[in-house]
Amino acid sequence: MSNTEQSVGIVAAQSAEFASALELCSGSVLPSYTLKYETYGELNAARTNAVLICHALSGHHHVAGRYHPDEKSPGWWDSMIGPGKPIDTRRFFVVGVNNLGGCHGSSGPSSLNPATGRAWGSGFPLMTVPDWVKTQARLADRLGIDRWAAVIGGSLGGMQALQWSIDFPERVAHALVIASAPKLSAQNIAFNDVARQAILSDPDFHGGDFYQQNALPRSGLRLARMLGHITYLSDDGMGEKFGRMLRSGEFRYCYDVEFEIESYLRSQGDKFANVFDANTYLLMTKALDYFDPAQAHGDDLALALRRAQAQFLVVSFTSDWRFSPQRSREIVQALIAADKKVVYGEIESSHGHDAFLMLDPPYVNLMRSYLRRVAEELGA
Amino acid sequence: MSNTEQSVGIVAAQSAEFASALELCSGSVLPSYTLKYETYGELNAARTNAVLICHALSGHHHVAGRYHPDEKSPGWWDSMIGPGKPIDTRRFFVVGVNNLGGCHGSSGPSSLNPATGRAWGSGFPLMTVPDWVKTQARLADRLGIDRWAAVIGGSLGGMQALQWSIDFPERVAHALVIASAPKLSAQNIAFNDVARQAILSDPDFHGGDFYQQNALPRSGLRLARMLGHITYLSDDGMGEKFGRMLRSGEFRYCYDVEFEIESYLRSQGDKFANVFDANTYLLMTKALDYFDPAQAHGDDLALALRRAQAQFLVVSFTSDWRFSPQRSREIVQALIAADKKVVYGEIESSHGHDAFLMLDPPYVNLMRSYLRRVAEELGA
Repeated sequence: MSNTEQSVGIVAAQSAEFASALELCSGSVLPSYTLKYETYGELNAARTNAVLICHALSGHHHVAGRYHPDEKSPGWWDSMIGPGKPIDTRRFFVVGVNNLGGCHGSSGPSSLNPATGRAWGSGFPLMTVPDWVKTQARLADRLGIDRWAAVIGGSLGGMQALQWSIDFPERVAHALVIASAPKLSAQNIAFNDVARQAILSDPDFHGGDFYQQNALPRSGLRLARMLGHITYLSDDGMGEKFGRMLRSGEFRYCYDVEFEIESYLRSQGDKFANVFDANTYLLMTKALDYFDPAQAHGDDLALALRRAQAQFLVVSFTSDWRFSPQRSREIVQALIAADKKVVYGEIESSHGHDAFLMLDPPYVNLMRSYLRRVAEELGA
Repeated sequence: MSNTEQSVGIVAAQSAEFASALELCSGSVLPSYTLKYETYGELNAARTNAVLICHALSGHHHVAGRYHPDEKSPGWWDSMIGPGKPIDTRRFFVVGVNNLGGCHGSSGPSSLNPATGRAWGSGFPLMTVPDWVKTQARLADRLGIDRWAAVIGGSLGGMQALQWSIDFPERVAHALVIASAPKLSAQNIAFNDVARQAILSDPDFHGGDFYQQNALPRSGLRLARMLGHITYLSDDGMGEKFGRMLRSGEFRYCYDVEFEIESYLRSQGDKFANVFDANTYLLMTKALDYFDPAQAHGDDLALALRRAQAQFLVVSFTSDWRFSPQRSREIVQALIAADKKVVYGEIESSHGHDAFLMLDPPYVNLMRSYLRRVAEELGA
């Protein structure tokens, strides 16, 4: 089947408007909001074959396919989703959603606040993983999906999959938690805070209300992304790819690009700063910091997971130092202690945290075989 | 002897003026320059008991003692240097020097350019480790020191100790290379470049000539230091000290300090930005990036070290991920391949890279016993 992999083809985004108020973990209330989403494949008659893809920090609802035949890049997880791919759209009805607070069409800091007619900016409330899961559940209601065949996500997306299994136990058959962690470490939070301070201290940030100032905090967002990138790649992977390679073959003794790694990071930062919203970046890093499902259960993750009814696939990557295998093992140990069914895959890879977006064969094979079993359970 | 450890007491900095031109690796020539230094203990009649302390990124010549009885903190390595301490000033004549390009009294970007009467700023040339070693050798000449009993440094300081053994083989009896690396990895360079970009993109940097603008690039330097600090501490050490501890006991859902680690990092950044020079910070990170003694020898470190006549102590710390034990082992393997005498200590510590400034007992004991042997060789 892997020899006949195809693209989902041309896709279109959809919008769902929610007019009922949403109470958030922070205590703030959002009177109404929009969620942007995409679907691929067909929902079966029994409505049992739906799969939710949860995105990470810089992701969105455009998960697979292209909007136009000449679109440069397909959706961000196109490698994994399509006819004959591990998340097989001949079997599954796949839903991608842009999280609330995002900057790709769902309500967020850069979207218009209906109450003022101007961008929300600093007025948009902070989000948490449970808030997102709540909004995704409302979207599932709208789509007539009582229970997901699987909720799947990497990194921050994996946290949403885990939270789904806790908050809506009866609505998740399988949770696939990839390159994730049960909560952030002090070091994780520290990196996030440096990224935030870079944005917050950019004079063009204007306290979050730069939209009205015809300004963009590009410099801060660029630094945040450069720093993020270091934590997405492994030391070894970076060494293999860039090492100490020089741009011009010799030292130039100035602050322009000298090493290839500098060129790569700066250009990644520049590209990102032109397309992503700084307030969304801040909000996403805070949602990461806040995530801690064990907290309400005396810091006992097994206790938090006891209510889950899902089966779990947990995947980690050996060279991921942002959320190392040890962090995934904490989840696995808690699931075992909570008497849940769990498959754990620790994948040998030099791709670091980014490996969840890559196609290391043992990873692809694991995803494929696990999801084939999920489909077979459904008779799909 | 450790029970009778004493301070070196009240110390005073000295200046040495060098009027002969200094040709740098970059090709730039500095017509004259000042080096600020301090000494502790007495040079013996044979002038054989001198020890040079090389500093790291943010260090300087004030290594031990106090300038006034009420000075808040002593020199930065006071724990290691003094009567009865591992670097025992009853036996050794200890020299600390502020590297050229520094911001503590030696000529540097923030000092006056005699040719213009204004701060050097962007006009100060970039430095390399071999440049520093050359200036330190001139200082040794001035002090009448033909041969150091030991050249000692941690991190970037360790690189200087290694370079000394290569560039002036006959002038170094022992090189103590602590928490160092034979060259930076792509990841190391990447972190340095993010720090530099933070400074370079600060609107108050003014291309390095902020001195004339009555401005200080505090924001960029603060970010650089916050980021640096993450790489100086270990993930585990940070976890033990700060974990997910909250400042006010509960989430506040805003961008002010929430976690204690944020408070710590921001205050470290603020303090540093008020006392350190941004151009010196840039210059120091570049010297780190450039360091690669094997480069001129076909990337063969053993070949580079073959000319060394020193004996070596190499020390690493298990939780140091900036310059991990693996990087020290590369040095040790090259020394062995070059048929040099080397003692290697891999110290169990949770203090990360900063451990070289701490007093983990196995580290202190190793330094003490190694340096006792050095002193005994001298009959000191």
